Amino acid sequence: MPNQPLQTLLTQNPEEGYALAVTLAQKGVGITQPSEEIRKVLRPIYSRDANSLIAASQVISIHFQTIAAANNYWRTWPRYFQ
Amino acid sequence: MPNQPLQTLLTQNPEEGYALAVTLAQKGVGITQPSEEIRKVLRPIYSRDANSLIAASQVISIHFQTIAAANNYWRTWPRYFQ
Amino acid sequence: MPNQPLQTLLTQNPEEGYALAVTLAQKGVGITQPSEEIRKVLRPIYSRDANSLIAASQVISIHFQTIAAANNYWRTWPRYFQ
Amino acid sequence: MPNQPLQTLLTQNPEEGYALAVTLAQKGVGITQPSEEIRKVLRPIYSRDANSLIAASQVISIHFQTIAAANNYWRTWPRYFQ
Amino acid sequence: MPNQPLQTLLTQNPEEGYALAVTLAQKGVGITQPSEEIRKVLRPIYSRDANSLIAASQVISIHFQTIAAANNYWRTWPRYFQ
Amino acid sequence: MPNQPLQTLLTQNPEEGYALAVTLAQKGVGITQPSEEIRKVLRPIYSRDANSLIAASQVISIHFQTIAAANNYWRTWPRYFQ
Repeated sequence: MPNQPLQTLLTQNPEEGYALAVTLAQKGVGITQPSEEIRKVLRPIYSRDANSLIAASQVISIHFQTIAAANNYWRTWPRYFQ
Repeated sequence: MPNQPLQTLLTQNPEEGYALAVTLAQKGVGITQPSEEIRKVLRPIYSRDANSLIAASQVISIHFQTIAAANNYWRTWPRYFQ
Repeated sequence: MPNQPLQTLLTQNPEEGYALAVTLAQKGVGITQPSEEIRKVLRPIYSRDANSLIAASQVISIHFQTIAAANNYWRTWPRYFQ
Repeated sequence: MPNQPLQTLLTQNPEEGYALAVTLAQKGVGITQPSEEIRKVLRPIYSRDANSLIAASQVISIHFQTIAAANNYWRTWPRYFQ
Repeated sequence: MPNQPLQTLLTQNPEEGYALAVTLAQKGVGITQPSEEIRKVLRPIYSRDANSLIAASQVISIHFQTIAAANNYWRTWPRYFQ
Repeated sequence: MPNQPLQTLLTQNPEEGYALAVTLAQKGVGITQPSEEIRKVLRPIYSRDANSLIAASQVISIHFQTIAAANNYWRTWPRYFQ
């Protein structure tokens, strides 16, 4: 989890937007538990617990909602508006 | 869970939108636990646990909200606007 | 839980919108656990567990939010706009 | 929990909007567990469990969000728009 | 938790908006468990349970989202719009 | 957790917006459990529990959604609108 500052929510497409959502979800964990060592201990536990995986997926879904809105859902306008 | 990159949130109708929401929910699980082997072990456990099923349905509901907004709720404009 | 494809999010009124939200919440469970047999086994368990009921109600609330927005909250415009 | 059909999300003020949110949250429970008898058995359990109370409050908060949006947040327009 | 009716979601600033969000979150608990006596018994339990505290903070976050939107995020318009 | 009153939701960029979301999430915990002493006792427990960390990250994600909307997603308008 690199600690690059977050400069923009704009991405080229939904795929990159999803990747950013994952980063934002991890960032929240990293801020609450800054020790990478402890996080590494926890990882094999929660990544084998279905409920933890679903909960992690939920945090991603909320961030993806934000990022999708920021990108106007990556909609391209119909031709007659251009 | 195929790993096709996500190109668009636009779908033809709510049914396809819901299917995409399911894919996005699974994608979050797949990124957090990339081993398909481990996910296959977990599947029979959480798919027989009512609370896990409800939690999974919730993640889908959040993604469906995003996708519905992206598609302007699949509304077709009334005739007098066309 | 009939498997009719979802054609529209538009409903006549909030009551029907709520019913659709319930259907969408169940749909998420049905996709994650396609076996109706297993779901029937789970039903008497979670339907007697207050926390499961509250969690189910929450999934419905998220879908209702989507459906309400899709229907412009079933608002009828004031007379002077008509 | 009376079973009156839900006709509108519009209310006179936030207080009534909150009451409607409570009704909608209960409606989700009532649909998932239609037996009033069973719900009455569950009530003293979850109403003395802090986590259940917080979870119930969360469902209400989601419905209140919907209802507040439906009512344009009960904003009255500034004088110069009237 | 005073039981004053909720008249408006408008507040002077985010700080007051947050306080209102806390009130709304507590209101949901108070309606589900009206007995102040029982709530007082529960308080020392959940207020020393980290997961309960996080859950309570989440309910506040949802109400704060509603209140922030109601107040147009307390944005003041740039000078050239005035 | 300093107790400065919250004056604005506007931040220079997403990074600062995220930091504010963390502050708002902590604020909810701090209001529910005002004793810094007790919170310090809880911290090493929940910060080593993967599910608590995910839950904390979720509260942050909801506040980040609010803050991102408040800041119009830190979008800069395309040149032709300036």
